[in-house]
Amino acid sequence: MAESVAAIYPGSFDPVTNGHLDIIERGRRMFSRVIVAVLVNAAKEPLFSVQERLQMLAKVTAGWHNVEIDTFDGLLVNFAQRRGAQVILRGIRAVTDYEYEFQMALMNRRLAPGIETVFIFPAEAYSYLSSSLVKEVSSLGGSVGGLVPASVEESLLQKIRTKNRG
Amino acid sequence: MAESVAAIYPGSFDPVTNGHLDIIERGRRMFSRVIVAVLVNAAKEPLFSVQERLQMLAKVTAGWHNVEIDTFDGLLVNFAQRRGAQVILRGIRAVTDYEYEFQMALMNRRLAPGIETVFIFPAEAYSYLSSSLVKEVSSLGGSVGGLVPASVEESLLQKIRTKNRG
Amino acid sequence: MAESVAAIYPGSFDPVTNGHLDIIERGRRMFSRVIVAVLVNAAKEPLFSVQERLQMLAKVTAGWHNVEIDTFDGLLVNFAQRRGAQVILRGIRAVTDYEYEFQMALMNRRLAPGIETVFIFPAEAYSYLSSSLVKEVSSLGGSVGGLVPASVEESLLQKIRTKNRG
Amino acid sequence: MAESVAAIYPGSFDPVTNGHLDIIERGRRMFSRVIVAVLVNAAKEPLFSVQERLQMLAKVTAGWHNVEIDTFDGLLVNFAQRRGAQVILRGIRAVTDYEYEFQMALMNRRLAPGIETVFIFPAEAYSYLSSSLVKEVSSLGGSVGGLVPASVEESLLQKIRTKNRG
Amino acid sequence: MAESVAAIYPGSFDPVTNGHLDIIERGRRMFSRVIVAVLVNAAKEPLFSVQERLQMLAKVTAGWHNVEIDTFDGLLVNFAQRRGAQVILRGIRAVTDYEYEFQMALMNRRLAPGIETVFIFPAEAYSYLSSSLVKEVSSLGGSVGGLVPASVEESLLQKIRTKNRG
Amino acid sequence: MAESVAAIYPGSFDPVTNGHLDIIERGRRMFSRVIVAVLVNAAKEPLFSVQERLQMLAKVTAGWHNVEIDTFDGLLVNFAQRRGAQVILRGIRAVTDYEYEFQMALMNRRLAPGIETVFIFPAEAYSYLSSSLVKEVSSLGGSVGGLVPASVEESLLQKIRTKNRG
Repeated sequence: MAESVAAIYPGSFDPVTNGHLDIIERGRRMFSRVIVAVLVNAAKEPLFSVQERLQMLAKVTAGWHNVEIDTFDGLLVNFAQRRGAQVILRGIRAVTDYEYEFQMALMNRRLAPGIETVFIFPAEAYSYLSSSLVKEVSSLGGSVGGLVPASVEESLLQKIRTKNRG
Repeated sequence: MAESVAAIYPGSFDPVTNGHLDIIERGRRMFSRVIVAVLVNAAKEPLFSVQERLQMLAKVTAGWHNVEIDTFDGLLVNFAQRRGAQVILRGIRAVTDYEYEFQMALMNRRLAPGIETVFIFPAEAYSYLSSSLVKEVSSLGGSVGGLVPASVEESLLQKIRTKNRG
Repeated sequence: MAESVAAIYPGSFDPVTNGHLDIIERGRRMFSRVIVAVLVNAAKEPLFSVQERLQMLAKVTAGWHNVEIDTFDGLLVNFAQRRGAQVILRGIRAVTDYEYEFQMALMNRRLAPGIETVFIFPAEAYSYLSSSLVKEVSSLGGSVGGLVPASVEESLLQKIRTKNRG
Repeated sequence: MAESVAAIYPGSFDPVTNGHLDIIERGRRMFSRVIVAVLVNAAKEPLFSVQERLQMLAKVTAGWHNVEIDTFDGLLVNFAQRRGAQVILRGIRAVTDYEYEFQMALMNRRLAPGIETVFIFPAEAYSYLSSSLVKEVSSLGGSVGGLVPASVEESLLQKIRTKNRG
Repeated sequence: MAESVAAIYPGSFDPVTNGHLDIIERGRRMFSRVIVAVLVNAAKEPLFSVQERLQMLAKVTAGWHNVEIDTFDGLLVNFAQRRGAQVILRGIRAVTDYEYEFQMALMNRRLAPGIETVFIFPAEAYSYLSSSLVKEVSSLGGSVGGLVPASVEESLLQKIRTKNRG
Repeated sequence: MAESVAAIYPGSFDPVTNGHLDIIERGRRMFSRVIVAVLVNAAKEPLFSVQERLQMLAKVTAGWHNVEIDTFDGLLVNFAQRRGAQVILRGIRAVTDYEYEFQMALMNRRLAPGIETVFIFPAEAYSYLSSSLVKEVSSLGGSVGGLVPASVEESLLQKIRTKNRG
């Protein structure tokens, strides 16, 4: 029992932040493998393409041998089953997070009773951090150094320069 | 990395409820071992002695080979380190739980950065369940069948009869 | 006083779920009549037309003699007054619900002091259920059996097949 | 169905506040009878005796023909059944209230499925009001006029004078 | 230290409500100057133009000598620094507000450690009030007298009449 | 208006933590004077005497010329009025804090409309910190370095050694 447990860490990662990395690092200490799963969602308009997001994730998790990057669409639990994962890993920052996560966790449990959702807190330095806040601050000219990896900060600045020119 | 991860599930278990058992069962599917740790706390006046609580727990977890029962006092993280556990497992039912757990998780992380606290939701049937509510209902003559294992219900009734006689 | 009290149960019902039916059934035991009121809102794009939603509601509440189905637009309290209702009935599932409901209840009380908003909890099995989650899961191929009546599940599957073809 | 519905409004009422009266008045407009039920709890040490609390309640609800005053101990749902009430009425002021009420409502529903707990918001002027805060402010010499009925304010002042002398 | 402290009160003010005025008045008693700062946000579609919002604000704060009206875009903390303000003033009404405000306050502190965000509660009569609720009620024909200043109510009615005609 | 505004920062300070000091320092940048007010409460049994708490506070705030230390009992707003303070300053860490603070702020506003309660967030490193948690961890042998000033840590250790010997 519980010999080799893989965990899915799903999200948009548009872009990946230091808060995400904090959760991935904590997760990979507890589980045999962590599969970072980028949601491919046609409806939402992301800042970075799926390809760009995968590249950023690959770069910043390069040193961690038991972390993989993948994409998914459709039901998360179906993806988890295809990948042989028994756990969905989620970071939780606030009460409003908590309620949404509660709803999703119970629905996912209903759809796939064998898959468990587990929650961990990010380091308190990242308790107020989200990809959308990072994008907003960055687009208004604020520095996001220390909130995202250096390579992501560079990609953000480049992307915003391109948008402003366009 | 993450080859054999033991989890501590701490609590008073005065008495163990079906909500606790639900968490233990979910935990033992994710982790190599789950160590149910009864807090020995001189300050609080429990209904059941530590000995009685250990016996009830042993009985209701008897079928699960990777679940152990133990006691602790002092700092939880010290106990976890002595037992070689890397994870503290907690069930979370409500927002007020969430905030207390947040406080404890961050303090424990500060005291022992290598130990991670993870949260899971109990089955929704147990979302309103707590040992103290079970004791209150039982002492007022209400049935708690379905909320605690049958052997615990029996112990509760016996204990209350003894108290009323005394 | 309080001889014959009618309650309005307002919502989008796009589509009606077992959580809604649970609230309607609890409401109709407490109040003389429950008027299920479908909000006709030009702004939001529903999955089902008002006509389809009315038909689904009529079918699943057919056995309850003191439940009526109606539509409204404009202020809810004006509709309640036209229908002679003294109560607005609402289910409450979570803290974020609670805050929105608090805001609406106090505004409605200000607009019509004689109309009271009352809240009840749905059965815990439906605590994570919402029409939008049902639509999302269903559109991704997940089963929603047990979360909506069988006739609604059928309508959902048909609607999604039509959309995918279109 | 729903021809004559009685509601229990349980509490300690130590002492009754204007917030309680606000809920009672709203309740008696919706239900045929409201039975204000004073909890007789040997464990807690009240400021006013059960007798005093009953007298204060009787005085301030004297004008309302469909409001009765009673006491109970043991399980609330047993009392409700003895009194033929189908509804438990509760005021809800805050998120922390909400969670406790959620727990009690689901437990009571389990003990007596035919009895429903309904929640209403007090007038916003009473959103911060509780008997214990009234007692604290009053005992420190602050005025609680406008927060409790005049007769209750008098009783409070008398009680505090007696205590300080004693 | 703290000789002359200016506070920024940022928002959309689309339109200004009595809840906003309540906060401004409380703020101007505590701080040397309150600068009401209208966010110029190209993305959101407001009901009133920036010019109209400035005029409404100017009219209703005319009697307060230490209140100024201004506009800003870009990062709020940059605007605060340009205006020599050390404080960001925010009203807080509910838990969901609280979490959003927490996130923004910590991000702003990171961007500009010398600027502090302070929170005050509006009068409880305005605890359920927001510009968007006022616009919704008004557009549906409900009265918002007492929730916005008379001059703002007039502007709202005029604006809605124009829209309906258009 | 707002020429010289004094703020009261009330609490038990049993003992003062780095979270308290963080709030005091933020407060003294915004207000002319901050009066740290130790509640003398006969009911609660503190670890440190009022005298000891005053000495610890005096030592750790020694460098701040506009910070004063005082004690109070009775109503906080009466103390504020005697000291000529117009502001009550509070740190807020969590939703459960928020609700209690909301209740106290509205009651205090009712008792003394001219005194405003303002809230600020402590640095996120102190978001989980409380005097009682510090005492608990310290009494169990855990290090609280970094959570309280060095002089307070020493006092804590001494106090605990004395208690264990006693």
